[in-house]
Amino acid sequence: MGRWEPNARGRLEQAALELYVERGFERTTVAEIAERAGLTERTFFRHFADKREVLFGGSFLLQQHMVDGAAAAPQGATPLEAVGAALDAVGEVFRGRHAHARRRQAVIAANPELRERELIKMTTLSAALAETLRGRGLAEPAASLAAEAGIAVFHVAFGQWVAGDEEQDMRPLLRDALEQLRAVTGTG
Amino acid sequence: MGRWEPNARGRLEQAALELYVERGFERTTVAEIAERAGLTERTFFRHFADKREVLFGGSFLLQQHMVDGAAAAPQGATPLEAVGAALDAVGEVFRGRHAHARRRQAVIAANPELRERELIKMTTLSAALAETLRGRGLAEPAASLAAEAGIAVFHVAFGQWVAGDEEQDMRPLLRDALEQLRAVTGTG
Repeated sequence: MGRWEPNARGRLEQAALELYVERGFERTTVAEIAERAGLTERTFFRHFADKREVLFGGSFLLQQHMVDGAAAAPQGATPLEAVGAALDAVGEVFRGRHAHARRRQAVIAANPELRERELIKMTTLSAALAETLRGRGLAEPAASLAAEAGIAVFHVAFGQWVAGDEEQDMRPLLRDALEQLRAVTGTG
Repeated sequence: MGRWEPNARGRLEQAALELYVERGFERTTVAEIAERAGLTERTFFRHFADKREVLFGGSFLLQQHMVDGAAAAPQGATPLEAVGAALDAVGEVFRGRHAHARRRQAVIAANPELRERELIKMTTLSAALAETLRGRGLAEPAASLAAEAGIAVFHVAFGQWVAGDEEQDMRPLLRDALEQLRAVTGTG
């Protein structure tokens, strides 16, 4: 399978993002990404199915952490506490990833196809969280509503975090948005 | 511009849905839709930009009703009451449309491109509702959170309504889902 390249995946990811920012996602080829990373196209395809996967390869990890966070909440936790635990776990995933997330977001914002893919990712996350909440004994439609509310909180807090200029912990933003959701839905 | 055709738009919509259900969205042509409706292709293109628009032509109307509903809520209404008013207005739009909505949903579920378009429509609805809530004096991120929660309620209640076998009023489903969201986010 060829020789081992130290941190090939990370180098490819870095090179791809640089090129997507510099010349646009559409106008970047896999050959250029590999060249910028000092690796071969063959190595690229050992790590990613295509150039879009470089941007979305982390989705499964994010979902896994979110679901594990909700599942690990104490047995007596309320649905919202389980959602809070899921969001804390999501915040952990993004620790130290601010500069990367910012560049990734700029690339996605510039391309309608990537924006659609990002929307679908959110729907997938919501469905996975709803399933976990049902596994904790929450009935429908409450499970889907709690999950969609949780994803809305993530969406809003992520937007604030990625718009910020500096690396910061996402979790206080997530907790604050969850609190605001509580306030806004509790006063009707 | 050609002679006036009584209810041409409705007949085209009906014919298109029939064909999309019978042979699939991809395999239906505009020429076939026009023929089934007893009209010309020219007439089709006076009403719809393309065959996808037949399925999404009602989106703007839906958004308009939702936004007007929220804007018309009493001045002292809480954010959630304004969202409830928006949802009641949405329920009105679907009155008498159950059989149509059911068929439309089956067509969309069968086609990834149409599912993506439907997701984008939800995002657009959410953004429009958030803007209306900001216009009522609600700050960010509360406005976006309340709007996304409202769209989640619509999404869940619409799913229940469209899955039902018979024509029914969507508003009790919307109100119940909103109540469940309140319960689930109020107990954390």
